[in-house]
Amino acid sequence: MIEQLLDRAQSYVRPIGAQPPASRLLAGRTVANLFTEPSTRTRVSFELAAKRLGADVVNLEVQLSSRVKGESMLDTVYTLQSLHVDVMVIRDAETGVPATVAANVAPHVSILSAGEAHVSHPTQGLLDALTVRQHKGRLDNLSISIVGDIRHSRVARSAYHVFSALGVPDLRIVAPPALMPEPGEFSGCSRHTTLESGLKDTDVVMMLRIQKERMAQAELPDADRYFANYGLTSERLSTARRDAIVMHPQPMNRGIEIASDVADGPSSAIRDQVRNGVAVRMAVLAEVMGSRGAP
Amino acid sequence: MIEQLLDRAQSYVRPIGAQPPASRLLAGRTVANLFTEPSTRTRVSFELAAKRLGADVVNLEVQLSSRVKGESMLDTVYTLQSLHVDVMVIRDAETGVPATVAANVAPHVSILSAGEAHVSHPTQGLLDALTVRQHKGRLDNLSISIVGDIRHSRVARSAYHVFSALGVPDLRIVAPPALMPEPGEFSGCSRHTTLESGLKDTDVVMMLRIQKERMAQAELPDADRYFANYGLTSERLSTARRDAIVMHPQPMNRGIEIASDVADGPSSAIRDQVRNGVAVRMAVLAEVMGSRGAP
Amino acid sequence: MIEQLLDRAQSYVRPIGAQPPASRLLAGRTVANLFTEPSTRTRVSFELAAKRLGADVVNLEVQLSSRVKGESMLDTVYTLQSLHVDVMVIRDAETGVPATVAANVAPHVSILSAGEAHVSHPTQGLLDALTVRQHKGRLDNLSISIVGDIRHSRVARSAYHVFSALGVPDLRIVAPPALMPEPGEFSGCSRHTTLESGLKDTDVVMMLRIQKERMAQAELPDADRYFANYGLTSERLSTARRDAIVMHPQPMNRGIEIASDVADGPSSAIRDQVRNGVAVRMAVLAEVMGSRGAP
Repeated sequence: MIEQLLDRAQSYVRPIGAQPPASRLLAGRTVANLFTEPSTRTRVSFELAAKRLGADVVNLEVQLSSRVKGESMLDTVYTLQSLHVDVMVIRDAETGVPATVAANVAPHVSILSAGEAHVSHPTQGLLDALTVRQHKGRLDNLSISIVGDIRHSRVARSAYHVFSALGVPDLRIVAPPALMPEPGEFSGCSRHTTLESGLKDTDVVMMLRIQKERMAQAELPDADRYFANYGLTSERLSTARRDAIVMHPQPMNRGIEIASDVADGPSSAIRDQVRNGVAVRMAVLAEVMGSRGAP
Repeated sequence: MIEQLLDRAQSYVRPIGAQPPASRLLAGRTVANLFTEPSTRTRVSFELAAKRLGADVVNLEVQLSSRVKGESMLDTVYTLQSLHVDVMVIRDAETGVPATVAANVAPHVSILSAGEAHVSHPTQGLLDALTVRQHKGRLDNLSISIVGDIRHSRVARSAYHVFSALGVPDLRIVAPPALMPEPGEFSGCSRHTTLESGLKDTDVVMMLRIQKERMAQAELPDADRYFANYGLTSERLSTARRDAIVMHPQPMNRGIEIASDVADGPSSAIRDQVRNGVAVRMAVLAEVMGSRGAP
Repeated sequence: MIEQLLDRAQSYVRPIGAQPPASRLLAGRTVANLFTEPSTRTRVSFELAAKRLGADVVNLEVQLSSRVKGESMLDTVYTLQSLHVDVMVIRDAETGVPATVAANVAPHVSILSAGEAHVSHPTQGLLDALTVRQHKGRLDNLSISIVGDIRHSRVARSAYHVFSALGVPDLRIVAPPALMPEPGEFSGCSRHTTLESGLKDTDVVMMLRIQKERMAQAELPDADRYFANYGLTSERLSTARRDAIVMHPQPMNRGIEIASDVADGPSSAIRDQVRNGVAVRMAVLAEVMGSRGAP
């Protein structure tokens, strides 16, 4: 299933500078972006994916007080369903919202997660896998290192899920001890508290965004100290394989978790990730709608 | 005229799960949603109605300080007119804005109200009428009870207007004394201060949203007290006719003016209202543009 | 080049009440409005221009903290580029952002400025020139007076640029001494500190918006004092040529820099400016995309 989705996404990929693919597959369909926390980048990626398949798109930024949040979210979802919205793309800072919505919405409505708390960010996982596949061909002989605040990262969890499913044999998580996940999580990954061991001879370096308050938790009280210990520099990257690629989900803290010359350097696949993101979202939209047959 | 609009709206209604109707009637036309108070639900309903008729849609959320509001609103409207906007959908918390705009704008521009202060919400009135007609067939033999903060409600006033015009013989308003309208208003309605008499043998129960500050005015100092006196429960609903339907303009305060099992129960027509809302707005857009002949 | 653009823009102009032109020239193309300061009017003008050429449009309102602003702006731009955005329309309160972006983005991406700090607002300059040309036919025999806070105005600078290029022989700037530009700027313009000399026998009066804090700088401590000294009234306008036109970039402070009866009077070309704005933006979009050949 994952590989099928990646194949479909690959068919939507075009080189930068070329026209993106255009399709009428979702003509007459309506996609709603329902975001309760701001994420311009992801919203625009889903919005363009839907429009390039011919769908109508509406954006809703909903601020909900937490007391009534569950109920109001469901009422908003029922409203969208009654407005003949076919696909709801949901981004929420709390756990369980996409699942709750999916459990309550009518069966013909598709729910896509655009990021759920620290739990998962499935289309990010898919675009990361597509990016690795484009650069490395196959995944079943790779070393992949995920570096940073693993503990609080939905990006890391979705990457772990998809890379495990695709048979990556050497999956490493690299973090200060305080930002390591609970022991039960990320089973099968090796754990590294230094970049030295974490990056050695790896094929893929996936950097994560670090929040200021997490540095303090990790006893790396400021950006300089964090960078000194866990920032990706050219020098450190040189300990990985020569053809290693560097990834980052963005937005980047340049000079904190990643040096600018690495982010923009020849090993960087960061812009490929963005381009692949819209292709993956087109594939997922096509998949969920296509499975329903012609309108 | 109202019945004509309802017929046209009915032609745009599709069952949930079916594709909504698509048309090119407004192709090349531009609809602007000009909202000075937030209302995601109504905005999205108008936006989808316009897009499904082929119009271009732009959304403007304008924050205007009250001192310069009248002038700035008109200047914004003149700007939209000069940008070849054909229809302006206006939502405003103050009285008189849609009328002022309509009086000043060029005659070829159509002004639609999406809710004006406590005064009126015309498309809500129409969708309420359409919903009742779908469930009851005819309106000239019905009892309809509107319950809640009648005094401050544009929804109640538009419902009163449309139901009166359509000849509903038994129209009731039900509210705590402090939330009753002035004596001169709602003429022809019977007034009830208890649900017991207000709901007895009624065909339609229209619940309104209550604001916290209004509870205090009604000497029902908190949500529990309000619910105890004016909340719609299954038990209370059972005093209405057996086939009575329940309506609510949303957003709902579940557990305050309406119990959740009633809102989601077999008598609820609340989701039909939403579905009918987009159909009514399509009908109104088609009506105002169609009367001008082909582009 | 300017005259070519104005010719193209003129071909997109329709009378108010007529249908705007529709084209598929930008079908399959994507335009992103990237605004870091709010400007609903300009955003909607670009949005409608792009949609009427058949483009997909996405709107991004980005709030960037100033410390990381440059980097984050570039990362946002790279993201949009990777999402196959063809044209980025950038509005920013700081100097140099459009140039920095243009210097870093891939060559196939077009960057359009929608207003840069106090420096320039190129499409505003073009729409001002188009408006004058429509009313006066030729520009090489005109007197044009720009009145108000010249010092801080991007509108004045772009007007100066375009009117100079088009050979306007008598270009005047009129302002309180404190709001005059530095001596090196606006070379070739005559400088006037009173409306009496500034407006005498002029063909075009371009009023600028004044900010409250600028009045204080000009030792005109309140709106009334500013109006008394630099507000455009019918009486003052009568010292210009009989067929003089009045322009304003909007939003207007009625009763501060311009009297309402002048703004809405027979000499006003203010609404023409708005209508011309969308035509100019269509022309610029068509120009930058058309030069690349068919998709």
